[in-house]
Amino acid sequence: MFPFSKTLFFLLFYTLSIMPPHLCQHPLDPLTPEEITLVQTIVHSSYPNSTHILTFQYVGLEEPPKPTVLSWIRNPSRKNLHRQSFVIARIDQTTHEIIVDLSLRRIISDQVYNGYGYPLFTFEEQIAANQLPFQYAPFLESINKRGLKIEEVVCGSFSVGWFGEKKRSKRIVKVMCYYLDGTINLYMRPIEAISLTVDLEDMKIIGFKDRLTVPVPKADGTDFRGSMQTPPFGPLLKGITVAQPHGPSFSIDGHKIRWANWDFHLSFDARAGPVISLASIFDVEKQKFRQVLYKGFVSELFVPYMDLTEEWYYRTFFDAGEYGYGLSAVPLEPLRDCPENAYFMDAYFASQNGMPVQMPNIFCIFERFSGDIMWRHTETLIPGNVVREVRPEVSLVVRMVSTVGNYDYINDWEFKQSGSIKVTVGLTGLLEVRGSIYTHKDQIEEEVFGTLLAENTMGAHHDHFLTYYLDVDVDGDANSFVKSRMQMTPVTDDKLPRKSYWRVVSETAKTESDARIKLGLEQADLLVVNPNKRTHIGNFIGYRLIPGSTTSPLLSHNDYPQIRGAFTNYNVWVTPYNKSEKWAGGLYADQSRGDNTLATWGLRNRIIENRDIVLWYTVGFHHVPCQEDFPVMPTLSSGFELRPTNFFERNPVLKFRPPQSVQWPNCSAYR
Amino acid sequence: MFPFSKTLFFLLFYTLSIMPPHLCQHPLDPLTPEEITLVQTIVHSSYPNSTHILTFQYVGLEEPPKPTVLSWIRNPSRKNLHRQSFVIARIDQTTHEIIVDLSLRRIISDQVYNGYGYPLFTFEEQIAANQLPFQYAPFLESINKRGLKIEEVVCGSFSVGWFGEKKRSKRIVKVMCYYLDGTINLYMRPIEAISLTVDLEDMKIIGFKDRLTVPVPKADGTDFRGSMQTPPFGPLLKGITVAQPHGPSFSIDGHKIRWANWDFHLSFDARAGPVISLASIFDVEKQKFRQVLYKGFVSELFVPYMDLTEEWYYRTFFDAGEYGYGLSAVPLEPLRDCPENAYFMDAYFASQNGMPVQMPNIFCIFERFSGDIMWRHTETLIPGNVVREVRPEVSLVVRMVSTVGNYDYINDWEFKQSGSIKVTVGLTGLLEVRGSIYTHKDQIEEEVFGTLLAENTMGAHHDHFLTYYLDVDVDGDANSFVKSRMQMTPVTDDKLPRKSYWRVVSETAKTESDARIKLGLEQADLLVVNPNKRTHIGNFIGYRLIPGSTTSPLLSHNDYPQIRGAFTNYNVWVTPYNKSEKWAGGLYADQSRGDNTLATWGLRNRIIENRDIVLWYTVGFHHVPCQEDFPVMPTLSSGFELRPTNFFERNPVLKFRPPQSVQWPNCSAYR
Repeated sequence: MFPFSKTLFFLLFYTLSIMPPHLCQHPLDPLTPEEITLVQTIVHSSYPNSTHILTFQYVGLEEPPKPTVLSWIRNPSRKNLHRQSFVIARIDQTTHEIIVDLSLRRIISDQVYNGYGYPLFTFEEQIAANQLPFQYAPFLESINKRGLKIEEVVCGSFSVGWFGEKKRSKRIVKVMCYYLDGTINLYMRPIEAISLTVDLEDMKIIGFKDRLTVPVPKADGTDFRGSMQTPPFGPLLKGITVAQPHGPSFSIDGHKIRWANWDFHLSFDARAGPVISLASIFDVEKQKFRQVLYKGFVSELFVPYMDLTEEWYYRTFFDAGEYGYGLSAVPLEPLRDCPENAYFMDAYFASQNGMPVQMPNIFCIFERFSGDIMWRHTETLIPGNVVREVRPEVSLVVRMVSTVGNYDYINDWEFKQSGSIKVTVGLTGLLEVRGSIYTHKDQIEEEVFGTLLAENTMGAHHDHFLTYYLDVDVDGDANSFVKSRMQMTPVTDDKLPRKSYWRVVSETAKTESDARIKLGLEQADLLVVNPNKRTHIGNFIGYRLIPGSTTSPLLSHNDYPQIRGAFTNYNVWVTPYNKSEKWAGGLYADQSRGDNTLATWGLRNRIIENRDIVLWYTVGFHHVPCQEDFPVMPTLSSGFELRPTNFFERNPVLKFRPPQSVQWPNCSAYR
Repeated sequence: MFPFSKTLFFLLFYTLSIMPPHLCQHPLDPLTPEEITLVQTIVHSSYPNSTHILTFQYVGLEEPPKPTVLSWIRNPSRKNLHRQSFVIARIDQTTHEIIVDLSLRRIISDQVYNGYGYPLFTFEEQIAANQLPFQYAPFLESINKRGLKIEEVVCGSFSVGWFGEKKRSKRIVKVMCYYLDGTINLYMRPIEAISLTVDLEDMKIIGFKDRLTVPVPKADGTDFRGSMQTPPFGPLLKGITVAQPHGPSFSIDGHKIRWANWDFHLSFDARAGPVISLASIFDVEKQKFRQVLYKGFVSELFVPYMDLTEEWYYRTFFDAGEYGYGLSAVPLEPLRDCPENAYFMDAYFASQNGMPVQMPNIFCIFERFSGDIMWRHTETLIPGNVVREVRPEVSLVVRMVSTVGNYDYINDWEFKQSGSIKVTVGLTGLLEVRGSIYTHKDQIEEEVFGTLLAENTMGAHHDHFLTYYLDVDVDGDANSFVKSRMQMTPVTDDKLPRKSYWRVVSETAKTESDARIKLGLEQADLLVVNPNKRTHIGNFIGYRLIPGSTTSPLLSHNDYPQIRGAFTNYNVWVTPYNKSEKWAGGLYADQSRGDNTLATWGLRNRIIENRDIVLWYTVGFHHVPCQEDFPVMPTLSSGFELRPTNFFERNPVLKFRPPQSVQWPNCSAYR
């Protein structure tokens, strides 16, 4: 192997010598293309292609320890921190967890994972698996038998989940196929009842079943491309745009974003998608930045379907852990996905062979001016003196759209000048529908697990649970979680006219079990406070979680998908910060058995009072499809808000002026 | 009286002769200034000022019966419907309900109301009551004793509620006073512990108590006027605006608004504020307008405070029924309350003496372009053919801000092209705070009913419950209310890999009791369907309510404020349409005893299946104030959405094109 390595070393040397050194690199910046290439080189130097079969299933930044990052932040002029990468590779059919030190240019840790579950799928293996049916005679026969044209068939790969099998399965996927022939909306044309099972390591079909023939739904009316629509069209609106003739008010330096009173770092991770780090807000009164959120991202996305039929029962997806919420991100379209005033940012991921791949326009960042009001008052009580003061709302949005197969998730992190961080997820894209014999609801007398959306088209009932990781550091990292219940209190004193009122009963969670919350059961404010810091008048400095959804799961606790997805059993969890506890559904979600998840970590019932804590909140949707969701769904949104609550001494935007007035340069006609 | 009437007749005749006849008047248009004047004239002709003491407490449109309106809509070319006005007047200290027919020019009904409760306060009587303390020696002495300057004192009138008194009270208010002296934020400077009781009919002080002396909170830091702020200021954002160089896409004809696929009527009512009527959506596929909402408005706003002290226990306001949610509307400030592309509309109310008063810029109507996505999909599964299709969201907003004393409520009715009606209420303005001896939280060892917000300033715990009246007419007026519960269902067949799933169990409410819902207890879709109309494939045509809040009240059921506010005991109610059942808290909210409210109407448990039904939804907030709410609150919003659900055959915006591109006329530099 020596000559090969030598050549590689030369190539590596050459590549690095022409790169400017990243003297100002932020320790949380995602891996650069050069770094990804270097990771590939270093890993291959230990596991050369000539003697090993190696695939890169995940390549990302191995972050420095949190204290190291925080001390670097306080003094960034010191020398750069060691850059490291965390790699999950399949090497000769075993899973390796490898840490590569890019500064030392060597592997510093290489561990074989023997537990349950497998890493993320790569694009390449999905593409390869999707192609196998076209060389597989029984499948071709099934297509032919149905009178379908093979050149109009498209296939996709589906994770298989786990259903109590004792024996460990190989890395497999189910491949399901769809029909085009007059539409590009393949998801509305499932070729139902054909199951293919593919072994991803051997890349071959190991199972095939053609159970019955179900009509393929018609192509008519399924295409969503504007160019394919025929009249009558909807009304055409006149042009409308957001204008900032003097440019944006934010600045972007690498991955650091500064806007108004906010400062944060935006990174990309193949699994999580956007990662917001080190979000701090400038306190005008104190004239300094104060910490709010060390890190926030979508940790897992659990999407179980409620259809028990043979080709559907296993559809209990973990979109982040199986497919990669970041990997599934799609380029954003200027003027449509993001308004005219948006700035776009690229991202990079490592392909299966370890090469960097550019993803253009993955994030957009824009100032949102929707016509809302930040605060106002009109005072009419003072005789002869009506006073009105109004501040319009302008916020900053970071957006990524992740298209995990059929579904498009619009992820917004919105920063408000008032200190709120508002997180929204919008669901749009295409339903997964089941081909069906039914053409009218009145024909249906059995359980069909869905809504008839069009002829032969059954929209399957399903859920979406997005679990957010929120490492809140409210004015420092030692925080406590406080549930402030509003408690109905009877009045026993007969001399008082009232018989009741509510008071606030604040309970500080001592251990993890105190902080597990099913929303909807009681009226409470959920706060993260810094028990070591108080306002001048003595309130604990805090932020509160305002949940936008109280949805809870409806699978039995002993059902296998729910064992894997037990982190959705509560809407809110709090854990002590632990660098390894990032993925609510486990690091290895594909075929996971729920043994290393948020729900199991919490069983240790660790102390969380006055600790560096992580808040987990799950936004849920039960989706009963309706005809409006066919053939493409209007966006349905939910989310949550982190809102300062006694964090500031007073309204932090009291002294904020309205934005400058807009001067239109050299326009003679407008206005 | 003959000569007087004759003169009046002449005047009347003269006035009318110069008015163009309203041939195109819509039967739901609010009373015009001329009509208000005519009402005044007609009522005074029966109750001349010379012999009667008469005050107009409420003057509004007496709407034609719903079938009459609907038949007029179908054939508006017929002659105008009779215009009528509903008047509540206090005449010689009794409450009269008067219906004036403006076409016949006479009173057609005049009934004395002898039940519990009183009508809305007028501005004039509040202003008069607020002035009384300044002529009242004991009050002046109390002010003097505190070392305060009387010229810096401002007073306000507070409804007194009802606390189980058997004897009927007179029409009274409590008057509470505040201090300016260096601020205009009087609500942050209560002069605590002085109670004045004013008889509104005799307009005199009938009670006074100066219980103790509490420090008046400092003026420092309370003024919210931009002009009064001193550095350091917040960061100044560059100009940002919404631009529609080709003009808006909506048209307004009187009170009828047409935009995109929506058509509705916007009226103003002194009690309810904005009233949306006859909202219909154009179905592009069917090429016709289809009914959605016959009428929607804020029926009541219940704001109980949780402070048991003598000057606070009674603060259990009914902002719509006592103060008038419309009467409390304030002019909107262009560019700040509403964006640059907004259109403004005036309103009129009748003063206490019956004269019309113009309220400028009470509504604004604008197209909202916030950068959101209406629908999108990127299809990546087809080899060699990535397809992306995106439609940006543009919606239409109708806004009114109601400032009921200290609080500013931002009311938005948002119409989406996809068929959703999204209703939002934003809470901003000023808290009601209690003057307090405390300057630090650590001093507090008793129940203080609030949060210490600043020195001597206690932000009282309180609630806001906004109950919306929603006369949904989903594709016709005979509708049913369906609760579609997602029910966890165990799988008993051992051969199946799954142990559970959820199915939809739809229950059609037969009677009112079936439709009372406390949210948060179960996972369900709440639908209004038209049981007589189905889509082509057989789904019942419907709309669903997506609640934005599951807040429930926390007063005991036997507490007097909750007896009056029992309509908040459930988040959702459904009643059969009944023209007289408009006000959830009763027609007479001031000093009401809860005997004619949504909660009592429902006791009849009427049939609501396949009927013209009204949906009532209550948006609630429990407000534990925090320091960020001082001295003026950043907006906190909630609301709900009415969303088409099998109303359309398919996605109704599939064939909608993005808005036209923006062409900047004659701008040489921009872009």
